[in-house]
Amino acid sequence: EILAAVEDMLRQRSGPLSGRHVLVTAGPTHEPIDPVRYLANRSSGRQGYAIAAALAALGARVTLVSGPTALPSPPGLATVRVETARQMMTAVEQALPADAAVCCAAVADWRPETVAENKTKKDGKGPQPLKLVENPDILASLSAAGDLRPALVVGFAAETETVAAHAKAKLARKGCDWIVANDVSPATGIMGGTENAVQIITANGIESWERMGKDAVARRLADRIAAALGGGSGAA
Amino acid sequence: EILAAVEDMLRQRSGPLSGRHVLVTAGPTHEPIDPVRYLANRSSGRQGYAIAAALAALGARVTLVSGPTALPSPPGLATVRVETARQMMTAVEQALPADAAVCCAAVADWRPETVAENKTKKDGKGPQPLKLVENPDILASLSAAGDLRPALVVGFAAETETVAAHAKAKLARKGCDWIVANDVSPATGIMGGTENAVQIITANGIESWERMGKDAVARRLADRIAAALGGGSGAA
Repeated sequence: EILAAVEDMLRQRSGPLSGRHVLVTAGPTHEPIDPVRYLANRSSGRQGYAIAAALAALGARVTLVSGPTALPSPPGLATVRVETARQMMTAVEQALPADAAVCCAAVADWRPETVAENKTKKDGKGPQPLKLVENPDILASLSAAGDLRPALVVGFAAETETVAAHAKAKLARKGCDWIVANDVSPATGIMGGTENAVQIITANGIESWERMGKDAVARRLADRIAAALGGGSGAA
Repeated sequence: EILAAVEDMLRQRSGPLSGRHVLVTAGPTHEPIDPVRYLANRSSGRQGYAIAAALAALGARVTLVSGPTALPSPPGLATVRVETARQMMTAVEQALPADAAVCCAAVADWRPETVAENKTKKDGKGPQPLKLVENPDILASLSAAGDLRPALVVGFAAETETVAAHAKAKLARKGCDWIVANDVSPATGIMGGTENAVQIITANGIESWERMGKDAVARRLADRIAAALGGGSGAA
């Protein structure tokens, strides 16, 4: 264990991301309806946790901001646990400055307009529609953060149809540098599963990676991020 | 391991619930909104799984119908995994006849009226209200199942206010025999936690149990169920 800790220290001093601070978001957000009910999504957090670990293995100082997951906090990096999109936004702001941000979390687009103080009961009149309001857009905010904008902002797009087209539109709309797009249709088994098949969308075009383990996607993406940031020291 | 299996067999032949079939429901239900989003609640399934195990330890043949949980299936009994309230209803019906039913699951009262085929996108016009419809009432159905009604039907009431009053009303409304009521206000740490503080509501009145581990609640409730069913063989 001591040996592993020493190895970690050496790697952090010598890896290609040594001296860099990278922010990673992962997992779903949960948006409360009342004290016991909430809106959720099927993100397991696996891809984001794997990316955080891969970046740390290249020497980066990593802040992982995670929604509710069943995963243990990865060793060798700082994990900040949150529940809602608004809490995630705050944690992300507090983690800046960063040299790069990888927004892998499946942040809820919407939350209930109001949170009932007590558990909502059936009243015989049938349920009222659940009014929703838009959550803050963490990826767009990071991409427009002015002096605090990370040099590289990577977003994820979880789509179920016309994946590449949606992802290209998202790249432009959000103002980020890369979009990692994946098809999370239930038939693919990707959301919640251990494998991923992604496309990388940049200003230069689209690159499709074969289906591989989420750990392998993470290592390849971390290498790509290290190459994009180049040498030298950053915000760590 | 062989020894444990033999012990299980002997216990199932000699315990006070030997020859009895008991149905237990546990965990939350998830109600899909689209391929990636769903409505959920904070039930961990711990109390229901503990009850199922305690009943099996008294010799019952146990069918555990469980919503999505992070818990392993308990050894020595049949676990049926489901996701939605409607799937749970079907699994419960298929598990009958039973001598007793313990409905511990936090079944969603409501589900989205329609499930979108593809992931719903932000369209710039703001989110539409989420229309909800009522789910089948598993506890009320079991309590009114005619020839297939278990001799003892136990419901749970997860309340956040005026717990005993709500639970008494639920007993009358659902037609079940006992209600086990607990206060799941976040401050209690009960929902998702390891302890429980319950009140048992029957036609004869209310009994309050001190706060104790969910395993201890389960053993005490299993003893009570064995006493209520008395001796002799049943539907197993």
